[in-house]
Amino acid sequence: MSRVHNFNAGPAALPLPALERVQAQLVDFRTEDGQGTGMSILEHSHREPPYEKVHREAMRLLRELLSVPDTHDILFMQGGARAQFAFVPMNLLHAGKSADYVVTGTWAKGALEEATIVATMQGARVRQVVSTEKDGRFARIPTKDELSFDPNAGYVHITSNNTLFGSQWSSYPDTGSVPLFADMTSDLCSRKIDVSKFGLIYAGAQKNIGPAGVTVVIVSKDLVANGRKDIPQIFQYRVMSKNESLFNTPPTFSIHVMKETLVELSKKGGIEALEAEASKKSSMIYDRLDARPDFYRGPVEKASRSKMNVVFRLPTEELEKKFLKEAEQKQLVGLKGHRSVGGVRASLYTAVPVASVEALASFMDTFATANDH
Amino acid sequence: MSRVHNFNAGPAALPLPALERVQAQLVDFRTEDGQGTGMSILEHSHREPPYEKVHREAMRLLRELLSVPDTHDILFMQGGARAQFAFVPMNLLHAGKSADYVVTGTWAKGALEEATIVATMQGARVRQVVSTEKDGRFARIPTKDELSFDPNAGYVHITSNNTLFGSQWSSYPDTGSVPLFADMTSDLCSRKIDVSKFGLIYAGAQKNIGPAGVTVVIVSKDLVANGRKDIPQIFQYRVMSKNESLFNTPPTFSIHVMKETLVELSKKGGIEALEAEASKKSSMIYDRLDARPDFYRGPVEKASRSKMNVVFRLPTEELEKKFLKEAEQKQLVGLKGHRSVGGVRASLYTAVPVASVEALASFMDTFATANDH
Repeated sequence: MSRVHNFNAGPAALPLPALERVQAQLVDFRTEDGQGTGMSILEHSHREPPYEKVHREAMRLLRELLSVPDTHDILFMQGGARAQFAFVPMNLLHAGKSADYVVTGTWAKGALEEATIVATMQGARVRQVVSTEKDGRFARIPTKDELSFDPNAGYVHITSNNTLFGSQWSSYPDTGSVPLFADMTSDLCSRKIDVSKFGLIYAGAQKNIGPAGVTVVIVSKDLVANGRKDIPQIFQYRVMSKNESLFNTPPTFSIHVMKETLVELSKKGGIEALEAEASKKSSMIYDRLDARPDFYRGPVEKASRSKMNVVFRLPTEELEKKFLKEAEQKQLVGLKGHRSVGGVRASLYTAVPVASVEALASFMDTFATANDH
Repeated sequence: MSRVHNFNAGPAALPLPALERVQAQLVDFRTEDGQGTGMSILEHSHREPPYEKVHREAMRLLRELLSVPDTHDILFMQGGARAQFAFVPMNLLHAGKSADYVVTGTWAKGALEEATIVATMQGARVRQVVSTEKDGRFARIPTKDELSFDPNAGYVHITSNNTLFGSQWSSYPDTGSVPLFADMTSDLCSRKIDVSKFGLIYAGAQKNIGPAGVTVVIVSKDLVANGRKDIPQIFQYRVMSKNESLFNTPPTFSIHVMKETLVELSKKGGIEALEAEASKKSSMIYDRLDARPDFYRGPVEKASRSKMNVVFRLPTEELEKKFLKEAEQKQLVGLKGHRSVGGVRASLYTAVPVASVEALASFMDTFATANDH
């Protein structure tokens, strides 16, 4: 068995020791004391201790890793970030109120689109604070001057990292007394954040913290308590919170794999270590872009560069094809840019080993030397 | 490794060969030609052939097993049946219309509750056709005389099998020109059905066809085309259908396990074989109830008995505790009745081996002989 260097944009690389633990007990799940239960975690009831312990431990690890304060709940939901595009305004955008959306990429735009539909349903409004779109592309995070928030807004929504275009907020905007909400699907657990500064954070697990099928929501208890009650119960943060995300059958296996992933992330030395590693890995690739700016062209402004998704173009589409083909021959896979963007994208999430990034950096040198005439 | 006899109500037993295939390739997924891809299916992109083939094959197997006609779409969604309680009326209950709900158990009641909230949001109405609740319990499916449908209803909603109380529709009601919708979470693929008679069928996978985390929706293309467009895109059957359930990241691993489960179900010889096995297994237990009606008391009317969940009480709660404890010592697990019902419940889903049911039946004989004084 030889593992490839996996730069997939999500679902993405997972820590090998986590996968090996999951594999070893796939047919006979072992509880903490090492005792086999005689069935797979896939077959365990969500109402019995073997699974309940996994569920609670995943929550505990996430709370510890991100220093989530007691003022905030952690919820496990289904439907991905896209479902949260709708659940967030359904729960927290009250009739007569308006919400501010900052548009820095495709998913930010999607969040605004869904919120617009929900606002119409609920007699509320949404407002685009600013969009950095230019010629169908997004190359930057807005400047402070562009961010003029509505002081009466119900909340401000941002997308902390833009997977497709490779941009990321280096620091978060000050929204005064208006709660700040962030879609952190593509950078949660890759950097230190002050959770108390956010009213709500959500993230599909399948990039940095686990597999597809589970979505993490970190939300202030005050907001949960004041959320709308006239929406279906299954969408209510209140109901999820009250039932510790066991209102209905949760995606038990996805949560099990997320737990094992969080164990590995924690072992790396906490959030500071994860942040340092993300800086180190992304620098290795950006250094190549900066060393040969005419060959590896980064479309994103330097101050807005993402440490998660490094996006670049080559001089011709032919060279890009050649790059991707030769990379694959060297077991460097998942490097193709998003179908709507093209070019190359290296996703360097928390579980991508430093050795994989070194292999990519080295390949970029070799390829440029051979093809930059 | 010794596997127990698993009678869990869901998540529930899965076919051992399916689990073993999933385990063997958990770190290095193999494509159809047996070639390793160098990564887990958990790490594969949902936009690349290795996963796409799994996705399509799961749909194909389900279509084949249930003889789903071309007039109907198969969708893979997230959120469980509970999310469908809301998605169904959101998509298909139009303003000014009313929908008919038949209440035969806790989940049917839950479906009506969510639909009531949605109807209020959408300027529509819901109507309870009949409820068979008596003293907080449900012991039967309604008679034909009790089923007087509104000929102008948008749809009629039923729950084909009631997991908690152990009742099941033996044949489905004639709703004339009004589309019939059914929550088949706990009996899909355990019996032959004429899908063309249904406007919509939905099922969380975690009882008969796979693990938690994926929900199957089988819906007439006409209904999809005429569904509401003023709800969030992520909830729209239209959007899911158009994108072959790849609008956003699907729960890839749950679908992979569902596919491997469907492979095993298909091997048993098609839906007729599965139906015959369900009859055989449930008869083994009901025969014990009928042989000792004073000791094993089945609260469900004979004509309404479920072939999936056999529910019974013993003369005292003390004896029930003793029964569950001694059963567990014989590796017969998951037999405790739902916390809201009590007693004993044996869930005999498609993947529960005949040998497990034989072991339970034999234990019931021994236990009754020893304790029925």
